[in-house]
Amino acid sequence: MRYGVLGTGAVGHSIASKLVELGHQVTMGSRQAGNQAAVEWARGAGEGAAEGSFADAAETGEALFNCTAGTASLAALESAGAEHLSGKVLIDVANPLDFSEGRPPTLSVCNDDSLAEQIQRAFPNVRVVKALNTVNAEVMTNPAAVPGDHDIFVAGDDAQAKAEVRSLLEAFGWRTILDLGDITAARGLEMYLPLWLRLWQSTGTAQLNVHVAR
Amino acid sequence: MRYGVLGTGAVGHSIASKLVELGHQVTMGSRQAGNQAAVEWARGAGEGAAEGSFADAAETGEALFNCTAGTASLAALESAGAEHLSGKVLIDVANPLDFSEGRPPTLSVCNDDSLAEQIQRAFPNVRVVKALNTVNAEVMTNPAAVPGDHDIFVAGDDAQAKAEVRSLLEAFGWRTILDLGDITAARGLEMYLPLWLRLWQSTGTAQLNVHVAR
Repeated sequence: MRYGVLGTGAVGHSIASKLVELGHQVTMGSRQAGNQAAVEWARGAGEGAAEGSFADAAETGEALFNCTAGTASLAALESAGAEHLSGKVLIDVANPLDFSEGRPPTLSVCNDDSLAEQIQRAFPNVRVVKALNTVNAEVMTNPAAVPGDHDIFVAGDDAQAKAEVRSLLEAFGWRTILDLGDITAARGLEMYLPLWLRLWQSTGTAQLNVHVAR
Repeated sequence: MRYGVLGTGAVGHSIASKLVELGHQVTMGSRQAGNQAAVEWARGAGEGAAEGSFADAAETGEALFNCTAGTASLAALESAGAEHLSGKVLIDVANPLDFSEGRPPTLSVCNDDSLAEQIQRAFPNVRVVKALNTVNAEVMTNPAAVPGDHDIFVAGDDAQAKAEVRSLLEAFGWRTILDLGDITAARGLEMYLPLWLRLWQSTGTAQLNVHVAR
């Protein structure tokens, strides 16, 4: 399958590399084609790896990952072009972390709204699925980096899109995937970040995740 | 030891009953002495159980539990009287859930502040420890109601207060107690609630809790 991965940071690298490893064709997109990090990634990632603008990645991909910084995601998707997004599954991995006042960050949207809902409203024809934002870049594509049982979540309005994302998450190595319902569940998934940041701080490792005991 | 438990709902009942069971003297406080739920609780809970106003409970207790509704907590503590709170450990179990717009609730404070911080600022001499707000009333005092390993959190500025709360949580049956740092960690603990509510909805049980795998 062909994937477009928007974003050239640690998350974009982790997702894009895993997709190539699984045999998919991947275009890593950035604000301008020729982005140095994307060019180096495409050169090193081997067969099936390419780079280009956000629009290139979105046009090429049959399904898309939003791995941009949460506060820049809407602009990135605008730049990708609604016509290149329409009808496609968009896996929104981003967290709307606002570092403008320093650390710890606040969320630029929360409580009665979420980034994933903003994206869904801005691009009504996109099949947005919130997933993977609750773990760090490495754990996203290598759940075994965290010992023991631990869980990942999906949320979105499109059941078929969530089923497709579930299959992909299984290919990434996830064993317990909890469907939290419609896209408004993204509020809870994004508002979990302040707790995640404290867990990282207090345990001294970002290789952590939660397991839901019940 | 003498405890004051502010609040007569399911959380207040669970905490107050467990404290009595552990051999402590407990005054359940409400807006006015003679509250029917508190009177019935005190009558049924046996030796060591009493009821009264918020001020009665706060004055009597050597340590206090805030089990009031989060949106009413500051008023309840005002009513209890700063002179009755000063120097005492206050375990803040409340969640600032605002149901005024219906369900799901939003948080009346979040992101760059929290209820626990508001309480700490309003009553600087109180030794506030945020704890137990991440599980339901029954699980708070009976962690074994949820199978397997799962964790509870404490946050607060006063290390000695947190040590005292840790001992009490161990007496409640908690085995893994993670210290998340100063009182600002309450933001993460309170902002976890929207995710908790979705976990309840999607799993169909409120007898759930998270284990931090790492």
